[in-house]
Amino acid sequence: MGKEKVVIAIGGNALGNDVEEQKEAVAGIAKVIVDLKEQGLDIVVTHGNGPQVGMIQNAMDSLVITQKDYKPIPLPTSVAMSQGYIGFDLQNAIKDELYRRNIDCKVSTILSQVEVDREDPAFSNPTKPIGKFLTKEEAEEKEKKGVCCMEDAGRGYRVVVASPKPRRIRELETIRTLVEAGHIVITCGGGGIPVISQDGKLVGVNAVIDKDDASCLLADKLNADFLVILTAVEKVAINFGKENQRWLSDLTVAQAREYIARKQFAKGSMLPKIEAAVRFAQSGEGRKTLITLLEKAAEGIAGRTGTVIHS
Amino acid sequence: MGKEKVVIAIGGNALGNDVEEQKEAVAGIAKVIVDLKEQGLDIVVTHGNGPQVGMIQNAMDSLVITQKDYKPIPLPTSVAMSQGYIGFDLQNAIKDELYRRNIDCKVSTILSQVEVDREDPAFSNPTKPIGKFLTKEEAEEKEKKGVCCMEDAGRGYRVVVASPKPRRIRELETIRTLVEAGHIVITCGGGGIPVISQDGKLVGVNAVIDKDDASCLLADKLNADFLVILTAVEKVAINFGKENQRWLSDLTVAQAREYIARKQFAKGSMLPKIEAAVRFAQSGEGRKTLITLLEKAAEGIAGRTGTVIHS
Repeated sequence: MGKEKVVIAIGGNALGNDVEEQKEAVAGIAKVIVDLKEQGLDIVVTHGNGPQVGMIQNAMDSLVITQKDYKPIPLPTSVAMSQGYIGFDLQNAIKDELYRRNIDCKVSTILSQVEVDREDPAFSNPTKPIGKFLTKEEAEEKEKKGVCCMEDAGRGYRVVVASPKPRRIRELETIRTLVEAGHIVITCGGGGIPVISQDGKLVGVNAVIDKDDASCLLADKLNADFLVILTAVEKVAINFGKENQRWLSDLTVAQAREYIARKQFAKGSMLPKIEAAVRFAQSGEGRKTLITLLEKAAEGIAGRTGTVIHS
Repeated sequence: MGKEKVVIAIGGNALGNDVEEQKEAVAGIAKVIVDLKEQGLDIVVTHGNGPQVGMIQNAMDSLVITQKDYKPIPLPTSVAMSQGYIGFDLQNAIKDELYRRNIDCKVSTILSQVEVDREDPAFSNPTKPIGKFLTKEEAEEKEKKGVCCMEDAGRGYRVVVASPKPRRIRELETIRTLVEAGHIVITCGGGGIPVISQDGKLVGVNAVIDKDDASCLLADKLNADFLVILTAVEKVAINFGKENQRWLSDLTVAQAREYIARKQFAKGSMLPKIEAAVRFAQSGEGRKTLITLLEKAAEGIAGRTGTVIHS
């Protein structure tokens, strides 16, 4: 049996809201990653980019407003930039932690694109809010230009984009080659740069791919043993926030499906994580998804905490 | 004998000044890269990022001005973003061209850092202009904050940063692993993200590494056969622009050194290219540097045009 392989998905919110917060955040993340490396696992790191791609899009929009000679930057291009922005700090924090523990292991960040289906129904029903809050007037102005906006929980208006399903990770062979060489690979940042294939040509699309979804696909294609989805709670609960709330340590695919059917998990929050978890757990024998807090990842993989979803 | 290996360095100016120009530019570059691939070469692509990192820094600066809750983005972080920005379009153009010619070859972009010496004398003598032109007043304002500015050839003032020598390509093993697997690798964008090592920790520094210099180091460490430096002329000339101007097809290291000593090459223009060319040509037996136009690269490698510098 080869080494166990884990794909670990870090939330964009866990990476901080600006470059200074990010540098602090990655130090904590690096400790967890290197703990897993010390347990002898092969590791692929994926991450969200919500606040970061929002910042980059804001910056690019400000530039177009203040300096007329620049063209607007499309969302997929901003995702590409966010992979550089996050990968730089994240890989260095991991390199630093490896160095301090005297572990010789290469770390690299692979720019990565995730292909979606141009016929994905998500394109006719954009639901994923991105960027900063807008006034009603600003939102109406954008709607006139064909940009979809939505009122967001009483906090103002936001641009919304489609969140299509990931179909194919275009740089899979690159990632696989490096993982097989024993490197720690950072990839699929922000769910991957969303692209569609037009006559073999990859074209960026105005969308955001759910990073847990993309991580699930990646874990499947890399034949990983573990998908680790990090979140803000140590374990998944049913009856969350109610008197009869119950934390779950272990969940079969069948149980998870039943709870999903009973609407136990919040849309846009725990539900997509559970769905990705189930999809990975049922994709092959012995595959498990762990949902837990960042700082509990190593303990969770050792079976001592978190919620494990398995077939 | 293995396949011949070439590191090809593309100028940032050849990539266009905005995202639309870039998409056009990369299509032309991709044709050249795939021509070389068809000749059976292993290929690593490096590129400059002058206009692109300038755009990103401007955008990030605009953001800090218009939205007070953001922190300024340091130059090395902008370089990281520019690697994503350029790599995304460049790798897809190459993938597209490969697909159209029915060639199965993976292409990937590796985020890359180039370590410099913190004691490099360049740090006390910043000479590399970056970003947009400033008025005298804006420049004075920046100088007060410790940012170095310089008058630029009568066109206004610009921020200048150090251009230290590249010492070590931190992601070399990743690049080598992928090249050995037959992939086309895009790396060392903008000369690499400039970093110094502090107790084993890589820290970004406010500098710009010459991309030809970084490409020379990369070509040396990858044991490449050819370093191709693309520029705005088909061949190198002596007595450039004068009546007795003479185009050179072939130049030994000794001849090149003599011309350098006689100040035949313009500082900040052809001189650094010739210096990198010489450094690579003398770094190992059989190594050659080609200086030519983008569209002449394949012909040049076949020995039919351009200027070849060899030992």
